Amino acid sequence: MAELLPLSPVPLYSQLKELLRTRILDGTYPPHSRMPSESELGKFFEVSRITVRQALGDLQKEGLIFKIHGKGTFVAKPKAFQNVSTLQGLGESMSQRGYEVINRLRSFKVVPASAQVAERLQLAEGDSVVEIKRARLVNRELVSLEITYLPEAVGRRLEKADLVSRDIFLILENDCALPLGHADLAIDAILADAELARALELEEGSPVMRIERLTHTADGQPLDYEHLYYRGDAFQYRLRIDRHKGPQA
Amino acid sequence: MAELLPLSPVPLYSQLKELLRTRILDGTYPPHSRMPSESELGKFFEVSRITVRQALGDLQKEGLIFKIHGKGTFVAKPKAFQNVSTLQGLGESMSQRGYEVINRLRSFKVVPASAQVAERLQLAEGDSVVEIKRARLVNRELVSLEITYLPEAVGRRLEKADLVSRDIFLILENDCALPLGHADLAIDAILADAELARALELEEGSPVMRIERLTHTADGQPLDYEHLYYRGDAFQYRLRIDRHKGPQA
Repeated sequence: MAELLPLSPVPLYSQLKELLRTRILDGTYPPHSRMPSESELGKFFEVSRITVRQALGDLQKEGLIFKIHGKGTFVAKPKAFQNVSTLQGLGESMSQRGYEVINRLRSFKVVPASAQVAERLQLAEGDSVVEIKRARLVNRELVSLEITYLPEAVGRRLEKADLVSRDIFLILENDCALPLGHADLAIDAILADAELARALELEEGSPVMRIERLTHTADGQPLDYEHLYYRGDAFQYRLRIDRHKGPQA
Repeated sequence: MAELLPLSPVPLYSQLKELLRTRILDGTYPPHSRMPSESELGKFFEVSRITVRQALGDLQKEGLIFKIHGKGTFVAKPKAFQNVSTLQGLGESMSQRGYEVINRLRSFKVVPASAQVAERLQLAEGDSVVEIKRARLVNRELVSLEITYLPEAVGRRLEKADLVSRDIFLILENDCALPLGHADLAIDAILADAELARALELEEGSPVMRIERLTHTADGQPLDYEHLYYRGDAFQYRLRIDRHKGPQA
């Protein structure tokens, strides 16, 4: 075991930490697996238990591992994230990075538009809209509940579409020939109430990231209004923002 | 009181709801004020109590008002929001829209960089960094806790800056002559632990929107690494995202 260099100016615990981090990130120690014990690691790398403990302590602070009292040290599951710097559906965005996204269709209904839905889609309150509820799974793990509202005429065209494996954005663009333009998003944090907890398979009172998203056609008409609820423990939104845009750039 | 039109095809409750919504939004009924009672509204607008109840019920579903058992109906406070389509500090962004932003400086310290901070700022672990903790108030209400990490040399130049009323972004650009370029953000939802609850004046277990933001100089060097924690009940992030960007546009 000559992977650690005792004569290096880099402290041994720091070398060990880097080595363990690499093995966690490359999958040698996969998510949820139990790490070797402190004494096993000490023997294996020929370092003291204090050195091992220091390395593990730092990895725990970084959130890469966690300890369960009396059971040992486990590799944490990294949060899935979606890059939202451009407008993409979850499936489109995640599958480019090798994740599998599938959906469970919870309901497909024609309902009267509430005041809020009507205002967003520029309809009259009570006008018929199609409401689609889907739970979305990334690599077989439930990450979000999506409630989509579409004007009735467009929405009905989705009734026979493959809502289990396809993004609504792609169905709108490819099957309905409605190219999309921009979306306006509002993001906040809420607690799961009983209904949301059931839908996301969470405890009531768990943290949920809520997104309200209104997507427009390329010519600027509001088309697709959604309420997206992401499990706080499983999902992150990532984006890049520029200091100056457009005329100032 | 001829503001409602009994002969209109629009149902009375719907007319009443629109009228009340307008008065809430224009400030006739200000945030946190008690609304007139159902019977007062009924007399005033010459409609039945059922009509009033239906109008109030819909406004409640929209989140514009809320009921307190035995106390009456109150106007909800709208959530403050920041538009993050371009990179701006909270002060810069909110003050353009007429909000007042002030900060409480909680601490200003030189600390050794953790593995995470060092990795983000491209420093060695343990290198000195300046850590600034500020609570931020919008219109006198606490909305966020911001923890900022800067390389020591730059950070020390902020020691005498006005951190109570100015954004760090503006101090970096104007006082330190370091123009900013882009920032990478990761957004998720967490629950307030004891420390965060104290800092944000929340109950433990309240929802918090967490942002990790790494801001770069105009020439692409990472400069300002922050952990931002927003009260879920008081704050929203809003942004616009385009379907196609750059070469595809």
